[in-house]
Amino acid sequence: MLVLASIVLLPVLLPLAATENSVKSADTMSKGAFNDLDKLSMGHVKENSLRLWAFVIATYWVSFVAYYLLWKAYNHVSDLRAAALMSPKVRAEQFALVVRDIPPPPQGQTRKEQVDSYFQTIYPDTFYRSMVVTNNKEVNTIWEELEGYKKKLARAEAIYAEEKHEGIRPTNKIGFLGLIGKKVDSIEYYSEKINELIPKLEAEQKATLKEKQQPSALVFFFSRATAASAAQSLHAQMVDTWTVMDAPEPRQLIWTNLPTKFYERQIRQSVVYVIVALTIIFYMIPIGLISAFTTLTNLQKLLPFLKPIINFITIKTVLEAYLPQIALIIFLALLPKFLLFLSKVEGIPSQSHVERAASGKYFYFTVFNVFLGVTLGGTLFDSLKTIEKNPNFIVSLLAESLPSNATFFLTYVALRFFVGYGLELSRIVPLIIYHLKRKYVCKTEAELKEAWSPGDLGFATRIPSDMLIITIVLCYSVIAPIIIPFGVLYFGLGWLVLRNQVLKVYVPSYESYGRMWPHINRRIVAALLLYQVTTFGYFGIKKFYYAPILIPLPILSLIFSLVCRKKFYHFFQTTALDVACREFKETPNMEMVFRSFIPPSLTASDRAEEDQFDDALSQVSRSASFA
Amino acid sequence: MLVLASIVLLPVLLPLAATENSVKSADTMSKGAFNDLDKLSMGHVKENSLRLWAFVIATYWVSFVAYYLLWKAYNHVSDLRAAALMSPKVRAEQFALVVRDIPPPPQGQTRKEQVDSYFQTIYPDTFYRSMVVTNNKEVNTIWEELEGYKKKLARAEAIYAEEKHEGIRPTNKIGFLGLIGKKVDSIEYYSEKINELIPKLEAEQKATLKEKQQPSALVFFFSRATAASAAQSLHAQMVDTWTVMDAPEPRQLIWTNLPTKFYERQIRQSVVYVIVALTIIFYMIPIGLISAFTTLTNLQKLLPFLKPIINFITIKTVLEAYLPQIALIIFLALLPKFLLFLSKVEGIPSQSHVERAASGKYFYFTVFNVFLGVTLGGTLFDSLKTIEKNPNFIVSLLAESLPSNATFFLTYVALRFFVGYGLELSRIVPLIIYHLKRKYVCKTEAELKEAWSPGDLGFATRIPSDMLIITIVLCYSVIAPIIIPFGVLYFGLGWLVLRNQVLKVYVPSYESYGRMWPHINRRIVAALLLYQVTTFGYFGIKKFYYAPILIPLPILSLIFSLVCRKKFYHFFQTTALDVACREFKETPNMEMVFRSFIPPSLTASDRAEEDQFDDALSQVSRSASFA
Repeated sequence: MLVLASIVLLPVLLPLAATENSVKSADTMSKGAFNDLDKLSMGHVKENSLRLWAFVIATYWVSFVAYYLLWKAYNHVSDLRAAALMSPKVRAEQFALVVRDIPPPPQGQTRKEQVDSYFQTIYPDTFYRSMVVTNNKEVNTIWEELEGYKKKLARAEAIYAEEKHEGIRPTNKIGFLGLIGKKVDSIEYYSEKINELIPKLEAEQKATLKEKQQPSALVFFFSRATAASAAQSLHAQMVDTWTVMDAPEPRQLIWTNLPTKFYERQIRQSVVYVIVALTIIFYMIPIGLISAFTTLTNLQKLLPFLKPIINFITIKTVLEAYLPQIALIIFLALLPKFLLFLSKVEGIPSQSHVERAASGKYFYFTVFNVFLGVTLGGTLFDSLKTIEKNPNFIVSLLAESLPSNATFFLTYVALRFFVGYGLELSRIVPLIIYHLKRKYVCKTEAELKEAWSPGDLGFATRIPSDMLIITIVLCYSVIAPIIIPFGVLYFGLGWLVLRNQVLKVYVPSYESYGRMWPHINRRIVAALLLYQVTTFGYFGIKKFYYAPILIPLPILSLIFSLVCRKKFYHFFQTTALDVACREFKETPNMEMVFRSFIPPSLTASDRAEEDQFDDALSQVSRSASFA
Repeated sequence: MLVLASIVLLPVLLPLAATENSVKSADTMSKGAFNDLDKLSMGHVKENSLRLWAFVIATYWVSFVAYYLLWKAYNHVSDLRAAALMSPKVRAEQFALVVRDIPPPPQGQTRKEQVDSYFQTIYPDTFYRSMVVTNNKEVNTIWEELEGYKKKLARAEAIYAEEKHEGIRPTNKIGFLGLIGKKVDSIEYYSEKINELIPKLEAEQKATLKEKQQPSALVFFFSRATAASAAQSLHAQMVDTWTVMDAPEPRQLIWTNLPTKFYERQIRQSVVYVIVALTIIFYMIPIGLISAFTTLTNLQKLLPFLKPIINFITIKTVLEAYLPQIALIIFLALLPKFLLFLSKVEGIPSQSHVERAASGKYFYFTVFNVFLGVTLGGTLFDSLKTIEKNPNFIVSLLAESLPSNATFFLTYVALRFFVGYGLELSRIVPLIIYHLKRKYVCKTEAELKEAWSPGDLGFATRIPSDMLIITIVLCYSVIAPIIIPFGVLYFGLGWLVLRNQVLKVYVPSYESYGRMWPHINRRIVAALLLYQVTTFGYFGIKKFYYAPILIPLPILSLIFSLVCRKKFYHFFQTTALDVACREFKETPNMEMVFRSFIPPSLTASDRAEEDQFDDALSQVSRSASFA
């Protein structure tokens, strides 16, 4: 808390150093209304002034406070992860192992026998049973169709019950979208369809389980320490066969990505990285153009008919402050889906990992395009020739452009917390949608529940945008310390608002046991590096002879990042054995663990299960809570 | 075999392409006796000639044959490693685990209790017992002193027995080096010393075992699959504590490096890398100077008094051919000890790993200094200015310098196999030394045996120098294919000679189960890359417009290296579980496994063992073959 307070004091102390001097350099005061901020910033200090020492100390101070807080946070999250992983509650995924790249089974053996005998040999005492991954595409289609009809039937029955006194049975048309075709009695029609589909589903389930087995499996152990250790061990002499990883939760397992082959995954990943790199680089151009055009003076020049509106003072203020930001926010809203899709295509078999991967891509995108794009964009037209002549010039150009964009980012941060958190806390949009749905669409209890459900937090977009704010606040923290209160407000309010939302509103769609944290940590350190380099560049522009005194900082950041990685990261990749070996409250019900991984499209009918899953080398009694 | 034969044919086929053309370019023939080789090389083909296509095809052919052979070899070595690791013979190191960075024990617990309870919790069924590493420096000193006196006593007794008929008891002086001081009766004196030292050793053993425990331990398991899996698993939440690795063989375990701390190891490694990099860079200068000075024409200019000798034709030939090489060989002989020392300082706890690390450093040293140094050095004085002006010029300069140094490397390879293998096979030097020792030094049976012992193969120097030869042969294979028969002779003879030496002469001082191979493979691929780049550069010098057709080759090499790494490497780092889970012929004697890791200085007296090692949670009977 004390260190945090000291950072909050910076915007009071540094302007003191700056403003006292400002009397002498009055020329900088005539730059216009929004450059008033300059008075409080380093831009106001004379070249090579002794007062720059205050800013040097501040640069070090901000860095060390950041290291300290990051270290404490990493420790804390690591403890939280350990506590969650060693909880005495039975979690199915802690007993399971994902196996991929299984070689073709030897003659006369089924895939299941192959997997069973392989793991039975290696883990004679702790192996429970295995589940071979199947290609569920067709069975899923049928199952979804069936579920659709079931919902429609329930809905028709609800309508019928509601209108019973009128005695009218609900009807629907069977053609395109229910708009054309023959009119039929809904309840009869859907019941008929369901009766048709059930045997079809059962037949398809059988076929799937027998004939559509893929070279991938889930393996279950009696002990979670064995499962944790197995997930970290090399199993086969050829590293590209029998590859293993710890199983994600059943609900976040991406079943379709499991059978992807070893080298196919590598190639897909490389291709996706190239596509992302191209996206990052070529999106920079439109953003640069937007931010160059949407400064008001530029707009006036380009669109002279706007002049009378712009001169109206309140409109001018609003436009000047928010126009480019709104453009930017809309623009950025289009991207996450695309990045999530790309990450899924890589062949990652767990939803949380996909979101982490997308989040990483999105972070680089925002930093390169929003931060660097806007910063350089503002001066892009002026300095294009300079860059062309001397590409190394880009660092000092960046530092030079920073102060002139302080206003933009200040309002960006302000907008994000006023509008963003307002919307977040009130949840006004979901509320309106819910009430509309309740009135006009939802008929059954299940439908109402679905309409009310608040969904997930959305890590893939929320975290990179917070990371962008931290990058902005860090980079301006010394150059224009007035941004610090805004940052404190943003993250302070964010803590209050999101804590409430996470605990009381959103329903997490998966649990990754804090695996997002190392990514956040690494990105904050990257932001810190960017901050240190640009600040160093800015000192260079101020012709401060002692600027090289800042050179150790980026090196320190790299060492800090390395030490964090060495000390904490491996535990976030896997489960440490002394965490996994804790005891449970009760003996885990292995049958339940196993069943929780069966996809819903394969559980629907009891008969199929008999055929498929009951040939396991089961050593536990079946008398447990399952029929 | 067929592909090998096709490579051997290259020196016949390519000169055909070159020599037919040579009639037209007679000017290249007047360069002097040693440039006769040029007639058979690519240097003889006209610029942009169509015949260069033959060399392009040859470049591809050599590369693909190299890929094919490397792939087959990797597969083969991997199988050999698997076969050795799954052998039904009990090997102590397969049951052991090295644990380092143990945190301080909690209050009221000894280090041993801490380690035991930690592993007992994680591996309740398979944990056998643990051995805490101690600081053996002082006990080792006393033990070595004692062993020395024992040897001297045996020697004195042998002398006395030999000279019994004369009745003279052997005497020695007790001062400096046995040259000054009081004369005493040897047998009495040594017996007295031994009797003095034995209780001292026992006291020191006790003190060591109790008070000099280090934060490191060896842990033993009943099952080798568990040990293999444990060595690959993260044990503690904090990654920098309880770090594990698979135990090396007892005889190659570097006991003193075991307690080195986690971050200390990292720092030491970085420092060592910096030192090695400096060594590699700054040794280049003297070698460059040597090879520039030792061409005969230069020698004549610098040392005119040598002129009469040099003009003597046989001396001239010999000098010209072998003088620089001898300088080089002597020069290189000084280095390995230094690199071994540096690698040991890194904190690596296994001798084989130290030798691998030293071998890697030595390889980079030889390639940079011998190959690049000599190649560039020959033209260094001519082209120093060009390099200074344009550092990128170094690639095409390298390609340009290659042909003129073909002679040097040809004779280098020839010298290596004539002299090297001759000495190797005859073992004339060890034979002379043995007979001299037998005559004048050795008195007891043990001393004779020690004098006869042929020692180790010396991987740390032998492999990098073979790698240098392969680099040379690959780089010249297309440009001057006459080098191929020399390479074939070198490696063919080497196969015959060293196979014999390894199987029948040398006594391996450790077994790393083929872990050297991935290093060799990677270095051959590096040589292949160098070959592809320099050949490409040479085609550029020949102004061959289609030279870019060679650009895919280096990319292919990188992909090949990556795929090799992905497919094979991990198995060479650790033991795959399906290899480790094979059964044994007999139940392993755990007592024997445990005892084999006790350092000799701590085993000498029985009493100490009782105190120390017998408090284990031993579940096997002690009735086995040990008293």
